[in-house]
Amino acid sequence: MSASSPLVETPCEYLSLPALVQLLQAILQRHGCSAEVARCLAQNCAVAERDGSHSHGIFRIPGYISTLDSGWVDGRALPVVEDVAPAFVRVDAANGFAQPALAVGRELLVRKARAAGIAVLAIRNSHHFAALWPDVEPFAEEGLVALSVVNSMTCVVPHGADRPLFGTNPIAFAAPQAKGQPIVFDLATSTIAHGDVQIAASKGERLPPGIGVDSLGQPTQDPRAILEGGALLPFGGHKGSALSMMVELLCAGLTGGHFSFEFDWSNHPGAKTPWTGQLLIVIDPSKGGGQDFAERSQELVRQMHAVGLKRLPGERRHWQRARSQERGIAIACERLEQLRALAQG
Amino acid sequence: MSASSPLVETPCEYLSLPALVQLLQAILQRHGCSAEVARCLAQNCAVAERDGSHSHGIFRIPGYISTLDSGWVDGRALPVVEDVAPAFVRVDAANGFAQPALAVGRELLVRKARAAGIAVLAIRNSHHFAALWPDVEPFAEEGLVALSVVNSMTCVVPHGADRPLFGTNPIAFAAPQAKGQPIVFDLATSTIAHGDVQIAASKGERLPPGIGVDSLGQPTQDPRAILEGGALLPFGGHKGSALSMMVELLCAGLTGGHFSFEFDWSNHPGAKTPWTGQLLIVIDPSKGGGQDFAERSQELVRQMHAVGLKRLPGERRHWQRARSQERGIAIACERLEQLRALAQG
Repeated sequence: MSASSPLVETPCEYLSLPALVQLLQAILQRHGCSAEVARCLAQNCAVAERDGSHSHGIFRIPGYISTLDSGWVDGRALPVVEDVAPAFVRVDAANGFAQPALAVGRELLVRKARAAGIAVLAIRNSHHFAALWPDVEPFAEEGLVALSVVNSMTCVVPHGADRPLFGTNPIAFAAPQAKGQPIVFDLATSTIAHGDVQIAASKGERLPPGIGVDSLGQPTQDPRAILEGGALLPFGGHKGSALSMMVELLCAGLTGGHFSFEFDWSNHPGAKTPWTGQLLIVIDPSKGGGQDFAERSQELVRQMHAVGLKRLPGERRHWQRARSQERGIAIACERLEQLRALAQG
Repeated sequence: MSASSPLVETPCEYLSLPALVQLLQAILQRHGCSAEVARCLAQNCAVAERDGSHSHGIFRIPGYISTLDSGWVDGRALPVVEDVAPAFVRVDAANGFAQPALAVGRELLVRKARAAGIAVLAIRNSHHFAALWPDVEPFAEEGLVALSVVNSMTCVVPHGADRPLFGTNPIAFAAPQAKGQPIVFDLATSTIAHGDVQIAASKGERLPPGIGVDSLGQPTQDPRAILEGGALLPFGGHKGSALSMMVELLCAGLTGGHFSFEFDWSNHPGAKTPWTGQLLIVIDPSKGGGQDFAERSQELVRQMHAVGLKRLPGERRHWQRARSQERGIAIACERLEQLRALAQG
């Protein structure tokens, strides 16, 4: 769904990654982020745009601005790292964004994972408004296996229930591969990601059947009906619903963050970012048995191709990344003008 | 699907759990298991039957016998525990069953999880022929959070591929709840579990559409066509497929066990048990931030009921367990006779 935004079909300018990061950083700083937070979010957002994850690229900038301007999130928060146990790190994001919280806890997490074989990072009091795969992929680039979950905001009806409770609650996973890009996936436990509903609404498109319900709980294919009082369904019926429940337990129950239904942003008009928690588990596969892990994952990929699989999870992003690195990141003229105005105005 | 076996509809005798364990243990010992392995598998199988998991209860006994008689699995294997790192335990199941391997590694795993905050148990060279939830639920009863995955045997077509490669590759999760039973789920990443296909075939029932394909890769609702050269599909399309791939990577890549497609049992007619690996991750939630975890999970359950959820994952099993504890485990006369004959003959 997020593959083809009209923004990419009519590009006017090709920006390098550093140029896009700089532009986005300037915008975020103008809207209340510290230089460090702005750089971290800008990098994350630019990388998503570079890799064709349009629902989590520059499309998100108005949301970031809105939520920062509302006073809902602290763009200058200083996350606090707590070294709890040999394989357990906690970070209090201090009502700031999750990415800077991960950034400050990351080194300790990796050190613990390499020493203990596995380690967990529990982030609470955090706002995650981005794709989840950029949080896990770098671990795989260092030869580690990473799993992350993040809960969001009430917009998914648990299977068998009448009303929404869970967030879109994505699960992301990354693993190294010997001769190739890491194997990476990032999947919402809802039928589709919330950003994709927003994109469909902005384009006036209808959704496939089975995606969501309207404010009366009736099935709908209208993305606006889902956004305006309706809700999404879990993917895969009771199974996706069980996984979404697990994400709530890991991200809120375990970290000390909010469940997707617990925060109240009604006094912050314009607030967009869920104030919840995030969990990351990192494993050092060199502690495992048998052959080198990256060789084994390469063998799995080889066999997946042998049974007819054309494209692996994450492969489209890698293809788009290579294209962006070659010619620059395509940004539509109109959007680029808007971004430049936001950076100055 | 597995809820209503005709075996339960026409019971003739009610056995206590110890009586059923003893009977199953006698059968397994007669077919080549050591007393210790037989007791471990019998307990697992009887508990599944007690809790109404009929596809993984006494229904599995002929399969156990067949695979043991074929010489494919070592019913007397002595698993070897390797203490690899402060939070990493490996067990070589030595071509035996996975449950005895978990049993010998369990204490060290729990000790590490409590000390380090999280720990992993990587079992390789193992045969898992049972439900997965009995492996995780006991951790939640001790106040720990547990996640386990196990790969199986090629019978699932990766989303976007033409031919099967993955196993049914279940994911099980368990978490404590303050005033109530642990929250537990166990879901195959295939549309349905292999045991449920076998039960449907034995009852001559058709399956719902979208479950699997025949030997030509064409959609079928005939369970026999799936079992005889056909295959299942992943649940939830590309998302379930990605999770199934993750299970392969964690259970084979990381443990040193076989991928679902790697073992060759053609020289062992009657072999039934996949020779793969299993991963367990155990987290000590007392290391997490905020309120007591079990209180938090109880709050989530309360809210799930508040939005209209009638039955939580695992709740049917707990209900059935209470019923079995009250009146005994219902076993149909004919089946009980068969079991008694197997224990003696």
